[in-house]
Amino acid sequence: MKNPTAAIIIIGNEILSGRTLDTNTQHIALCLAELGISLMEVRTIPDEKQVIIGAVNSLRSLHDYVFTTGGIGPTHDDITSEAIAEAFGVKWMRDEEIFQIIVKHYQDLGEGINPAREKMAFVPEGSKLIYNDATKIPGFAIGNVFSLAGIPEIMKAMLNSCIPLLKRGRVTKSKSLTLMIGESKIADQFQQLQNKYPDVEMGSYPFTKENKYGTTLVLRSRNYENLEQSYLELEETFLL
Amino acid sequence: MKNPTAAIIIIGNEILSGRTLDTNTQHIALCLAELGISLMEVRTIPDEKQVIIGAVNSLRSLHDYVFTTGGIGPTHDDITSEAIAEAFGVKWMRDEEIFQIIVKHYQDLGEGINPAREKMAFVPEGSKLIYNDATKIPGFAIGNVFSLAGIPEIMKAMLNSCIPLLKRGRVTKSKSLTLMIGESKIADQFQQLQNKYPDVEMGSYPFTKENKYGTTLVLRSRNYENLEQSYLELEETFLL
Repeated sequence: MKNPTAAIIIIGNEILSGRTLDTNTQHIALCLAELGISLMEVRTIPDEKQVIIGAVNSLRSLHDYVFTTGGIGPTHDDITSEAIAEAFGVKWMRDEEIFQIIVKHYQDLGEGINPAREKMAFVPEGSKLIYNDATKIPGFAIGNVFSLAGIPEIMKAMLNSCIPLLKRGRVTKSKSLTLMIGESKIADQFQQLQNKYPDVEMGSYPFTKENKYGTTLVLRSRNYENLEQSYLELEETFLL
Repeated sequence: MKNPTAAIIIIGNEILSGRTLDTNTQHIALCLAELGISLMEVRTIPDEKQVIIGAVNSLRSLHDYVFTTGGIGPTHDDITSEAIAEAFGVKWMRDEEIFQIIVKHYQDLGEGINPAREKMAFVPEGSKLIYNDATKIPGFAIGNVFSLAGIPEIMKAMLNSCIPLLKRGRVTKSKSLTLMIGESKIADQFQQLQNKYPDVEMGSYPFTKENKYGTTLVLRSRNYENLEQSYLELEETFLL
């Protein structure tokens, strides 16, 4: 059976300008891998409404799940939830439950509400709320699209809260072998092993260390027996 | 005048599995920013031929430049150059100049040629070669698509060699102000400033530090006069 598939949309001018290194992708990728969900694409796009709408609609039709990060705060450049509402063709409206949470949150701080704070209560009509430990204000999901914060700590807490909502697949396990040999010396034998085990995905990742070439050979599969067997053969081929 | 635009295609199962953190995007993004080239999209995709062809053809028609990273080595999972040849509808063929470089390189090491080493001489017909300081074997460019290595050091050297081939635009300059205030307190005034200076892109990037909320306000523009003026007003609004 096929595993569920997913895509990530990183909404962020700050990533495209080079100002910020995106680490959210790796965190989400590792989390999905543990759930047996295959991450098929990551698209980093600017904070532009029509671009967000296009990416959301294209990817939600192709994959079981789409995760967006960024653009859900109170400032004018936070347009993700409005864009997702438009992508789904639903109203962007104030959710009364979120609004009351926000009012109470600021009351506790001795502060009032303002248009920016109220804006955080607006979500696409029909959204599920994503409660989380990192912030009182919930995130939201609509259809198969989960909208997470851009701040890594908050994103992680929101992602945790999404996990119970996701179908799981068979986890792809991996084994790797690192050799201080250049790729071109082992490529032929590695290809033969790949041909023998087509359901084990075999990748070769070269690196340089102290001016020497090395290669990490990574085997990945949902067929654990073939993974073990092919790994034994890999060791026999290159370590003996 | 509009700046040239670019997209990056990160070809890498190892990024999608979460095994590797992609740092190539940030390096390329910063380099393009210095050249006044607007990075519009980054797409991370698996090592699958049809997916690579689709991404290359879609993005090369939308942007002035496309940079790919990864998949140009000698092993069976390196399929980028073959896929790009197919995307352009040209032959994937052995380049005699590269082949002679490879033969000599291994001769100097006292070694011979093998099919994996020969494979590195195959590029799309009509490619320009990208000579670089990090490896004897050149990368290649065809049309507006530049194919770079995945190993960061080699990618950087290849990118350096591409720079003289690129049209430049007007550099977007930026200024930023970091405040230990939550976004929702400053959002209304920040939006007013954005409305006053529509050609200055204003972004608000919240963060947490020692359990307190802070916000970095970033102003970016190709109109340097308005950038300075709006930044002065930003300081007057929030620092006085």
